[in-house]
Amino acid sequence: MDVAVIGLGLIGGSALRAFAAAGHRVFGYDADPATRATARTAAAQAPGTARWQVVSTVRDAIDSADLVVVAVPLPALGRVLAQLAAAGYSGLVTDVTSVKGPVRDLVERHLHRQHDRLAGFVGGHPMSGRERSGFTAADPGLFADCAWVLCLEPQVTPVGDWLTVAAVVTGLGARVVPTTAVEHDRAVATISHVPHLLATALAATAATDRLAWSLAAGSFRDGTRVAASPPGLVAAMCGGNADAVRTALDEVLAALADARDALDTDEPIAALVPWLARGSTARAVWPPLAGTALELPARPDALLRLGRVGGWVTAVADDRRTVTAVRPVTVDPPS
Amino acid sequence: MDVAVIGLGLIGGSALRAFAAAGHRVFGYDADPATRATARTAAAQAPGTARWQVVSTVRDAIDSADLVVVAVPLPALGRVLAQLAAAGYSGLVTDVTSVKGPVRDLVERHLHRQHDRLAGFVGGHPMSGRERSGFTAADPGLFADCAWVLCLEPQVTPVGDWLTVAAVVTGLGARVVPTTAVEHDRAVATISHVPHLLATALAATAATDRLAWSLAAGSFRDGTRVAASPPGLVAAMCGGNADAVRTALDEVLAALADARDALDTDEPIAALVPWLARGSTARAVWPPLAGTALELPARPDALLRLGRVGGWVTAVADDRRTVTAVRPVTVDPPS
Repeated sequence: MDVAVIGLGLIGGSALRAFAAAGHRVFGYDADPATRATARTAAAQAPGTARWQVVSTVRDAIDSADLVVVAVPLPALGRVLAQLAAAGYSGLVTDVTSVKGPVRDLVERHLHRQHDRLAGFVGGHPMSGRERSGFTAADPGLFADCAWVLCLEPQVTPVGDWLTVAAVVTGLGARVVPTTAVEHDRAVATISHVPHLLATALAATAATDRLAWSLAAGSFRDGTRVAASPPGLVAAMCGGNADAVRTALDEVLAALADARDALDTDEPIAALVPWLARGSTARAVWPPLAGTALELPARPDALLRLGRVGGWVTAVADDRRTVTAVRPVTVDPPS
Repeated sequence: MDVAVIGLGLIGGSALRAFAAAGHRVFGYDADPATRATARTAAAQAPGTARWQVVSTVRDAIDSADLVVVAVPLPALGRVLAQLAAAGYSGLVTDVTSVKGPVRDLVERHLHRQHDRLAGFVGGHPMSGRERSGFTAADPGLFADCAWVLCLEPQVTPVGDWLTVAAVVTGLGARVVPTTAVEHDRAVATISHVPHLLATALAATAATDRLAWSLAAGSFRDGTRVAASPPGLVAAMCGGNADAVRTALDEVLAALADARDALDTDEPIAALVPWLARGSTARAVWPPLAGTALELPARPDALLRLGRVGGWVTAVADDRRTVTAVRPVTVDPPS
């Protein structure tokens, strides 16, 4: 397949390398000339079978592409989609941004306006962020065994488009999770966006006390690791998903209010034990174990049910009538 | 020196191994016969120069001891201190529990009652917890370059006692941080106890959604790592330091309320950037870098000032008139 990657940061750069390593013909573009130069130098040093081309315009990148991977931050996404539309691109498009509702809206405005579908779109999100960013941090192995969400909107996304992108992404070793933009945004608010807010609040609070700053060890290191992420990226991700993040943050704040109440009792140690036990029991069974592989019909309802119970797709059959799927073994996360 | 270690969990077991490896004669005791048997078997497998003895009573452990390290959880500490007093032990005692105010009160009740100082006491806390617990997780290298708090209470702790314990602990490679029980408890509330509460609240919240549970990746893994800790231990540590934890939790909740307000604005992305930047800038300069070593007079005022600016002691001079100290280089944690 001919794949274009627009935006060569950590995720785009890793996708560029991973698609090339998987045998696709890959064209990369970044708006920053210095990043293009770095990516071009790296291409010359890559094994001959896994090289990519770095081009100087979006048009050159998408010229022969069957699939365009837009790997720019959310604030830049609308502009790139408009460029694809202006260039008359009519193949498939996917993205890698960490919120999917706002992306769906941008796609409706730029690619699917007036019911005139210029290009097919399948929203994506590889769950593989790192606190390092930029092309120099790119790693072709970043997606191995990583959950990679691909949005399947009932009555909107043609299942054929979804299966094409799913086949390419499973080829990188990723676990493809079928879900909708709304369900995705609710889930990542809890497991990614709110954790960034907690980490930041903790780091900023501890920084006001030098003794604390010096004593801080393992629980602080891990609890604040993602606080070092670039503020602009985290703001785009949390602020671009504000409704779901508010809801998830309020749930965590309600849990913390319960802990606060336990601290206020006459027996805070005894009062905290059951509160702590809930989270401890849950965390002990995470990550969920993979069950045995099964065949599922490649239909939207079956795929979305799979995502809802925490399952994923590992391969798309050649005839595209079935997928190989894995459900987690049924150690239920306690609720 | 003859050292007795009472309680052979992760910290006590590691101390047992580390003191033995540093050349001390070490006696270990645990209330649990199975733990004693495990520790005895491990002793037989240790190098001849780094063996320890495991005995079956507290009395046997402390019989010839110059220093008793009490490494039991807070709820068991009073009973052990009473046993030391009942046995007429008159050497030095230190502990490793993660709250120091309640320990100071127990020492006053059991060891220093009626101004009759039965034994010298220096409260301690190695900042080296791990999510694994028990003797089988013990590691003699656990304390290398780890911050180890030793409490120096003005007008209460004889500086000679403090220096004796500090000399032994720096011999394990630890960075000894001089502070008071009150200042310690305030600092660890922020950098250890509240992080446990945040991790637990996050794990419990995410466990209610199977899609979220399946998508959870790096930021969730690190942000919830310590949620898997034994609830009883975490409850003792947070509930035993309830006042300071309440204060620190309220500071973090206030910071999160600011983030909540930013999410409520018409421009949540722009509003979040300055809020995120504070924590991000702070986290980027943690851990603080060590400055050059300097000599300090071994006096309580100089030692406590060192702790307050985030510094630590690396060695005690043989004449015990000075210590070798390190201050962090002055990249101020932004506040």
